[in-house]
Amino acid sequence: MSGQFRKLALIGIGLIGSSIALAARRQGLVEVIAIATRQQGTLDEARELGLGDIYTLDAAEAVRGADLVILCTPVGAYESVIKAIAPALRPGAIVSDVGSVKGHVVKALAPHIPAGVSLIPGHPIAGTEHSGPSAGFAELFAGRWCVLTPGPEVDPALTAKLSAFWRAMGSQVEIMEADRHDMVLAITSHIPHLVAYNIVGTVADLEAATQSEVIKFSASGFRDFTRIAASDPVMWRDVFLTNREAVLEMLGRFSEDLSVLQRAVRTGDGPALEAMFTRTREIRRSIISAGQETAAPDFGRPHESPPIPDVPFIREHGGGDDA
Amino acid sequence: MSGQFRKLALIGIGLIGSSIALAARRQGLVEVIAIATRQQGTLDEARELGLGDIYTLDAAEAVRGADLVILCTPVGAYESVIKAIAPALRPGAIVSDVGSVKGHVVKALAPHIPAGVSLIPGHPIAGTEHSGPSAGFAELFAGRWCVLTPGPEVDPALTAKLSAFWRAMGSQVEIMEADRHDMVLAITSHIPHLVAYNIVGTVADLEAATQSEVIKFSASGFRDFTRIAASDPVMWRDVFLTNREAVLEMLGRFSEDLSVLQRAVRTGDGPALEAMFTRTREIRRSIISAGQETAAPDFGRPHESPPIPDVPFIREHGGGDDA
Repeated sequence: MSGQFRKLALIGIGLIGSSIALAARRQGLVEVIAIATRQQGTLDEARELGLGDIYTLDAAEAVRGADLVILCTPVGAYESVIKAIAPALRPGAIVSDVGSVKGHVVKALAPHIPAGVSLIPGHPIAGTEHSGPSAGFAELFAGRWCVLTPGPEVDPALTAKLSAFWRAMGSQVEIMEADRHDMVLAITSHIPHLVAYNIVGTVADLEAATQSEVIKFSASGFRDFTRIAASDPVMWRDVFLTNREAVLEMLGRFSEDLSVLQRAVRTGDGPALEAMFTRTREIRRSIISAGQETAAPDFGRPHESPPIPDVPFIREHGGGDDA
Repeated sequence: MSGQFRKLALIGIGLIGSSIALAARRQGLVEVIAIATRQQGTLDEARELGLGDIYTLDAAEAVRGADLVILCTPVGAYESVIKAIAPALRPGAIVSDVGSVKGHVVKALAPHIPAGVSLIPGHPIAGTEHSGPSAGFAELFAGRWCVLTPGPEVDPALTAKLSAFWRAMGSQVEIMEADRHDMVLAITSHIPHLVAYNIVGTVADLEAATQSEVIKFSASGFRDFTRIAASDPVMWRDVFLTNREAVLEMLGRFSEDLSVLQRAVRTGDGPALEAMFTRTREIRRSIISAGQETAAPDFGRPHESPPIPDVPFIREHGGGDDA
C-alpha cells in the first residue's frame, strides 16, 4: 500500500523518466535509483542533474536487484531492452513502462518476461512538448491520470503496490485493458498529434513569405497546434507504427466529420455551422470540471501590459477603476 | 501620430470591444467612449463594468460626433449596422472593425460609407476562448499584431493615426491587402479552428462511456484543441460563411497532406513519419522567437505539487538538491 520500492531502475531518462526520478525521490518512494541509457551524453546529463544514484550504459547492470523496473525509452526500443535485461531481472520484480500504446507493448515484452517477474504496463497521461533529462520536473504527474494494464496473471497486490507508487507521485490511477486504452488514446492523443503535425506541416510547405506571415499572426489559433507538434519525433513515430489500427479507425471518423463540415462551408449552411460550433463548448467545460485543464483564459499564457504614456486624456467619466 | 481620438464609438461589446475600451482608456487615447449593443443585458453588463461613458441600444446615437467608430459585432451583422449608422456618421470620421475576415467586410461596408468618411478595416490578431463584455482585458493586444487593410482611396494620414491608436494599445501594426489577409488567416486561424471544432465534434459523437474516458485523459493532447473550439460560435459561423474560398483552398491542402500522413501510418513508413514529425519543431521555435508564444513548457499551464509524505526513505546518495 505504501508504494515504496528498494531499488528503482529507469531504462531511458527523457522527460518522463527524469520526472519519475525527481518525483519518486522527493516523495521518498525509493532508496536507490539506477539510470540506464544508450547515449553517453544523455547519461552525463542525468548525472549532472543528480537524477539518480547509479548511472550506466548497461541496462542489465541497472536492473540487477531492482524491485521496480520502468522502461522509459521510445516503444520501438522495448524488444531489444527486454532481451538485454531479462537475464538480470530479480524474481519478484515488477517490470513496467510509460509508453503511449499498450497492446503492442504487451506483445513486445510478455514473451521475454522471466518466471517470477510481473509485467504491469503503464502510461502516465502527462507530458510537455519538451524532451530529454533536463525537461523533467517532480510535479509533472500531479492531478494527471496514470493507466495500468496488468494481464490477468498479475498478482493484484503487485498492481496495488505500483498504483500506490503512482498515487504517491500525485497521479490518479486507472486500471484498464490494453486494447481499450489504445482505442481511447487514439482519439485523445494520437489523432490530435497527427492533426497538429499535419497542419504545421502544411504551413511548412508554404512559400517563405506566407510562412513568415503565418508565424507573425500565429496567435490567431495556429500556435496552439505547434505545441504538441513540437513533441519528440521518434516517440511519436513509434506510437503510429504500433497503434495503427486504432489510429486509422479514429482517423476515418475524423475525416468523415471533416467532410461534413467542409460541405457546410461550401454550401454556406450557417445553421449547421453554428450548431456544430456550439456543442463543442460543453466538452471543454467537462475537462475543466474534471481538473484536467485550467479555467484561465488562453491556457493562462502570460500577457504583458503596454507602457502607460505620460500625458493621457483626463478621465472625465465614472468607470471601474476605483476599487 | 499620437493615436488619440475625441470620441470612440464601439458597436458591439464582446471580448474585443471591451478590451479596446479598457486599453484605450488606460492608455489615455480617447476622451469619450460610446458603447452600443443590441441586447439590453449586454449593455447593462458593460455599464456595470464601467467600460464606457455613453451606453445605448441605438448604434446611430453612439456614432454621432465620433471621430473613430469600430464595429465589434460578428461580421454577419455589419451590413445592417452600417445602414443604421451611415446617416449619423460625422464627416472626417474613420470607420473600422475587428472582424476576422476582410474582403467580405469591404464588400459589406464600402457601398454604405458616406462621402467624407474613411473606411479602414482592421483585425487585431488577439483573443481568448472567452466571450462577452466581462472577458476583455487591457493587455489583450500587447505584443500582438493588428492588420489594417485600407483601400487606395484612404488618406495615409488617417491610416497612420489609426495605426498609432493600435500601437498605443501595445499592438504591432501591419498594412495588407484584404485578400492577402484572408488567405493568410485561412491557414493561420480559420483552418485551425475548423479542425479543432471537428475533432472536438468527433469526440462529442462518441458513446458516453468513451467520452468520459477521453475527458479524463485529455491532458494527452486533446485538451489543447478544446480551447479554440470553445470560441464564440456565431463569430466563427460568420467567418466560414464569409471567407469560403480561402478556407476551402487551404482545407484542400490540409486534406491532401493528411492523406499522405495516413498512408504512411497504414504502410508503417517509419522514416517518413519521423521526417514529418521533425520538421514541425522549427516552426514553433520561430513563433517563440517572434514573441508570439511563450517558451514555457505546456503554455505555462500551472502544475501543482503532490503533498510530501511524513516518512520518506532517507536519502543516501548525492543528488541535485543542495544548491
